Amino acid sequence: MKTITTLSDLRAARLSLTGTVGLVPTMGYLHEGHLSLIRRARVECEHVIVTIFVNPTQFGPTEDLSKYPRDLERDLGLIEPLGVDLVWNPSAEVMYPSGYQTWVEVEAMTRPLEGAMRPGHFRGVTTVVAKLFNATQPHKAYFGQKDAQQAAVIRQMTQDLDFPIEIVVCPIVREADGLAMSSRNKYLSEAERKAATVLFRALSAAKDLYEGGERDAEKVRGKMKEVLAGEPLAQMQYVSCADYVSLEELREIKGKTLLSMAVFFGKTRLIDNFVLG
Amino acid sequence: MKTITTLSDLRAARLSLTGTVGLVPTMGYLHEGHLSLIRRARVECEHVIVTIFVNPTQFGPTEDLSKYPRDLERDLGLIEPLGVDLVWNPSAEVMYPSGYQTWVEVEAMTRPLEGAMRPGHFRGVTTVVAKLFNATQPHKAYFGQKDAQQAAVIRQMTQDLDFPIEIVVCPIVREADGLAMSSRNKYLSEAERKAATVLFRALSAAKDLYEGGERDAEKVRGKMKEVLAGEPLAQMQYVSCADYVSLEELREIKGKTLLSMAVFFGKTRLIDNFVLG
Repeated sequence: MKTITTLSDLRAARLSLTGTVGLVPTMGYLHEGHLSLIRRARVECEHVIVTIFVNPTQFGPTEDLSKYPRDLERDLGLIEPLGVDLVWNPSAEVMYPSGYQTWVEVEAMTRPLEGAMRPGHFRGVTTVVAKLFNATQPHKAYFGQKDAQQAAVIRQMTQDLDFPIEIVVCPIVREADGLAMSSRNKYLSEAERKAATVLFRALSAAKDLYEGGERDAEKVRGKMKEVLAGEPLAQMQYVSCADYVSLEELREIKGKTLLSMAVFFGKTRLIDNFVLG
Repeated sequence: MKTITTLSDLRAARLSLTGTVGLVPTMGYLHEGHLSLIRRARVECEHVIVTIFVNPTQFGPTEDLSKYPRDLERDLGLIEPLGVDLVWNPSAEVMYPSGYQTWVEVEAMTRPLEGAMRPGHFRGVTTVVAKLFNATQPHKAYFGQKDAQQAAVIRQMTQDLDFPIEIVVCPIVREADGLAMSSRNKYLSEAERKAATVLFRALSAAKDLYEGGERDAEKVRGKMKEVLAGEPLAQMQYVSCADYVSLEELREIKGKTLLSMAVFFGKTRLIDNFVLG
């Protein structure tokens, strides 16, 4: 496994990989969710490239860029046994040198949900992912369903810009008590960590309602709000019951549907989602 | 030579090309300028892909999209003898299907000159070129110096987005009397065609001034305006004496410099440029 920090080294290393290449883009501080993506890539592709880059352009000015958890040695130790060929680990200066001025933007579907709460977030995501696609030239790229809107936006970008890349979205990996794995879980106090299961409980209650026949989206959103309201440490930012493809809020549930939410515990913001239908 | 109109056919045909690939993106209605790009690609690369696509997203609402000259049969006849492997000739619906919503934008350097006169133009250019790069996966891509700002913007985009592609910019090809070749020259009446040599004359006069030692950019711009004002059929839109890389207007000429201009003859808008230094 080679760890690479300059574009010229990456180009040379990429040229030496013949056969199919799977890309797993990450911001590091890896957990079982990331590792599940790498394992899937390892099964499906002849070579695997993992990128570790905390992308500054997808953080808002008031967000947690500077304190986002980082531990490269630990990350490399976790992925070395998985059969990864290359780790692309550029600095911010390599990715965004002086004079940098190009942006990739997906429009309509970045406006609701995370896009509404985090202005500019998806512009940073799509730009860095386009750069990673170009720099690593993969055949398949692996993303987690945990960031449901991100996965949808990247799928749209890939299709719109004619990238010859298959986007593979892998299931959310959860702790035993249902909490979705996230690098940000590390921020939670012990009490907040216990309370954070409320996302899973709220989504499960909404799913039960749906499976009982409820198709009124407002009632499903109401159920999620109700469960979240029962947890004093949780401050809801949004709950959503939206069309899986367009991400537009629904009145009536029909077809594939995304239940999603963002919830604060103190300063820590967690997201989670279920797919129905 | 295969002419291809669907992305799946293009993917398959591209996979069959082994070795280096040169891309020559065009809007068709080919002239000697385009052919010079194709010949250069043919010399430098093992395979050549020409794209012919009149890109609607780079035309403004009041511009000449609907009347932009088109003649596919003639174009194919011109390039067949040059040893082109593939012609990518998609419809607007293939390039921008319903639900399309992704844009590539270069910021600072698209603001002056053509960008100031044609809002949204470069967003259309960079988006379509990114799509063509992804769809054809070339090693080198060939552009004409005639569209000087376009070449600079594409070079910036390629660098910023980490495309593993070398941008080759080829010299302007001119008619015997100095008029830069352009598909839009076809719009000119006989009188306008004669008058249109004024762009070359204005640029030549400015260059003479520079070669005589003048370094005051405003005087160089003044000379170009003076020559253009002497031609009654010419309506100047802008003249510029700018830094070759940043495209910012200069006070004092030092280093590589772009002299450029846009001039109307009736409804026909022509551009031309010289590089100094």
